[in-house]
Amino acid sequence: MAGPSAVSPLSRPLPQLPPIPGVRLAAAEAGIRYKGRTDLFLAEFAPGTTVAGVFTRNKCPGAPVDWCRSALAGGQARALVVNSGNANVFTGAAGRAACAATAGAAASLVGCPADQVFLASTGVIGQELPAIRITEALPGLHASLRADGLEAAVRAMMTTDTFPKAAVREAVLGGVTVRLAGIAKGSGMIAPDMATMLAFVFTDAALPAPVLQGLLADGVAASFNRTTVDSDTSTSDTVLVFATGAARNAADADLAAFRSALNEVLLELALLVVRDGEGARKFIRVDVAGAVNDGSAQRVALAIANSPLVKTAVAGEDANWGRIVMAVGKAGEPADRDTLSVAVGGVWMARCGAVVPGYDEAPVAAHMRSDEILIEVDLGLAAGRGTAWTCDLTHAYIDINGSYRS
Amino acid sequence: MAGPSAVSPLSRPLPQLPPIPGVRLAAAEAGIRYKGRTDLFLAEFAPGTTVAGVFTRNKCPGAPVDWCRSALAGGQARALVVNSGNANVFTGAAGRAACAATAGAAASLVGCPADQVFLASTGVIGQELPAIRITEALPGLHASLRADGLEAAVRAMMTTDTFPKAAVREAVLGGVTVRLAGIAKGSGMIAPDMATMLAFVFTDAALPAPVLQGLLADGVAASFNRTTVDSDTSTSDTVLVFATGAARNAADADLAAFRSALNEVLLELALLVVRDGEGARKFIRVDVAGAVNDGSAQRVALAIANSPLVKTAVAGEDANWGRIVMAVGKAGEPADRDTLSVAVGGVWMARCGAVVPGYDEAPVAAHMRSDEILIEVDLGLAAGRGTAWTCDLTHAYIDINGSYRS
Repeated sequence: MAGPSAVSPLSRPLPQLPPIPGVRLAAAEAGIRYKGRTDLFLAEFAPGTTVAGVFTRNKCPGAPVDWCRSALAGGQARALVVNSGNANVFTGAAGRAACAATAGAAASLVGCPADQVFLASTGVIGQELPAIRITEALPGLHASLRADGLEAAVRAMMTTDTFPKAAVREAVLGGVTVRLAGIAKGSGMIAPDMATMLAFVFTDAALPAPVLQGLLADGVAASFNRTTVDSDTSTSDTVLVFATGAARNAADADLAAFRSALNEVLLELALLVVRDGEGARKFIRVDVAGAVNDGSAQRVALAIANSPLVKTAVAGEDANWGRIVMAVGKAGEPADRDTLSVAVGGVWMARCGAVVPGYDEAPVAAHMRSDEILIEVDLGLAAGRGTAWTCDLTHAYIDINGSYRS
Repeated sequence: MAGPSAVSPLSRPLPQLPPIPGVRLAAAEAGIRYKGRTDLFLAEFAPGTTVAGVFTRNKCPGAPVDWCRSALAGGQARALVVNSGNANVFTGAAGRAACAATAGAAASLVGCPADQVFLASTGVIGQELPAIRITEALPGLHASLRADGLEAAVRAMMTTDTFPKAAVREAVLGGVTVRLAGIAKGSGMIAPDMATMLAFVFTDAALPAPVLQGLLADGVAASFNRTTVDSDTSTSDTVLVFATGAARNAADADLAAFRSALNEVLLELALLVVRDGEGARKFIRVDVAGAVNDGSAQRVALAIANSPLVKTAVAGEDANWGRIVMAVGKAGEPADRDTLSVAVGGVWMARCGAVVPGYDEAPVAAHMRSDEILIEVDLGLAAGRGTAWTCDLTHAYIDINGSYRS
């Protein structure tokens, strides 16, 4: 069995990352915690760049989350500073000071107000972030900004990630082709001191900040908020979209194609995080149909995806539909045992409240040995549908999380 | 490391189980699923015995849960039939027929209406319960009923339990000393096909069914509903209390002492189930204070107790208070990072939103190596308090649940 540090068997290759007009990036070894690897990146955006953001719902967010929420009110972004190795969470007044110092230093270099600088930190929590290492590194980073710096950026923000994650699309917006490139880190949905999820999408589209915010909120609801690794919610989860406007598309363009492309980037990034779930050996999709409405279906799908008993059954390659029934029942959503049906790998094992007599176990067993598992539930009540994605729960999850800090 | 079948290192010895006047029991090998062990017990109660019950909130309950809920309306009990090896869950019309056949057979032997017979089943789900094995065994069981049959009963309902669980108390009720004896099974809070929690309390007190129901509901809220092993909710969880009235206490007696004794029995049984949590090596108590009210504190305590990241940290003997902060924040309850304090083993590691500089790690590290872990959180908002109990999340949990059915 592969150790925790081996690349996830569910990994995907990093795509070619094109330059996004209006965005330049650079990464550096700031020595915040790690040795011999990059741990800091700076992105600079063209004047006029708009920004949208979605953050963790955790009630104990990190200082950079507070900073970004406040800065987002202006809707304008000129810089993004991201470090790994220290999450700047639960650091009190020192944490706020570290944010102010970092943003101030970046603002001076770029020539903008500090509230046009966005910040994200990931790593150990409860230790003061040595902001001096960041501020001292920023001038050199600023001098080395380049259009093709995206790959360096994604690598600099990895923590327990076993592979770098990115997604790329193009879309026609107001008669102009615009580019979107997204990068993400995360390995577990989510651990406060290691596996925070950060995602940044860069585009050269011209879109007002409120429009961008609406698109992002919808896109996150349909992607990141439908995935789970272990039900734990980071103090630092952050998704930001930056639109430089370099493509000079019309302001009143039809958004449909751009919306689709953004949604695809967000979903691809979210699923890459699941594929790098801590200790994951199998990628699980849960489709729920027949619920009283879509929201109810989504909650049932997440209850199944979060069930330790379902996830350990998948790890054990056991098509244990009884545990799926249990998870449906514990979701608290309208469900009727006697109209409930369950399929694994496309084979309906239970229909309308009872096992299907003599269903063919052979294709189910073969499906359970593959690394992509499909669970389908039909509640048989109405037309509500939902989907969640997760991974299995394995020994490696215990290894990673039982020994990280010590 | 001990295998799944070894006795939990957190186990407690079985107490001496006294006869409860008005209760006779017997166990047998009915061959429902297991070989060479008892898997069925019958309890017979004196005429006039009252009953109260609390059941799983799972929306897909087993047929015996439906049966008991319906039978409870009468408030009278003359018999209890419990089997292990098959949970009679998700078995459709056949499951309902098995309940009717079992209750009918027991009712004829005891001489009572079928709705004075209570039923519970635990074991594999989705397979038809062979009721014939039960009904054929019942006459022999009825012929061998004895006052000192409690220990045989608790052993007959074990599934993946690694030790039998019971609790005993006495209380003065209306000037008369009454006895309470409780038995439980469960090993995991809760798996549908193996670790269902069943608990039965027998007393010779004389109490009207509605009074007994109120006492039980309060007692379960303060015991079983404050414990968790893996957040999964069984389709079969059942707690029943039977009061035979043999003690002939006054009907209008002060209930305080009886209430305390019942609460102690229920809490002791609930904590025994946690001590037999699947794969458990450490017993964890989570105390939350300073919440806006007790309900909020209880929800925060359960969020911490259910967090896989907290539970794996405890398994790894890592006093990772950052994960405790994360779990507080994800609970969704009112919390303010800047008034939040966290202690492990009585040592406050974080106070009012920041790490305590130079706190003494040595006693914390020693505490983490023990098998009883105390986590304390003070939200610093108001006076609400709550407590939850759980166990750590270990390799053995994965082993047990990744390979049970196959």
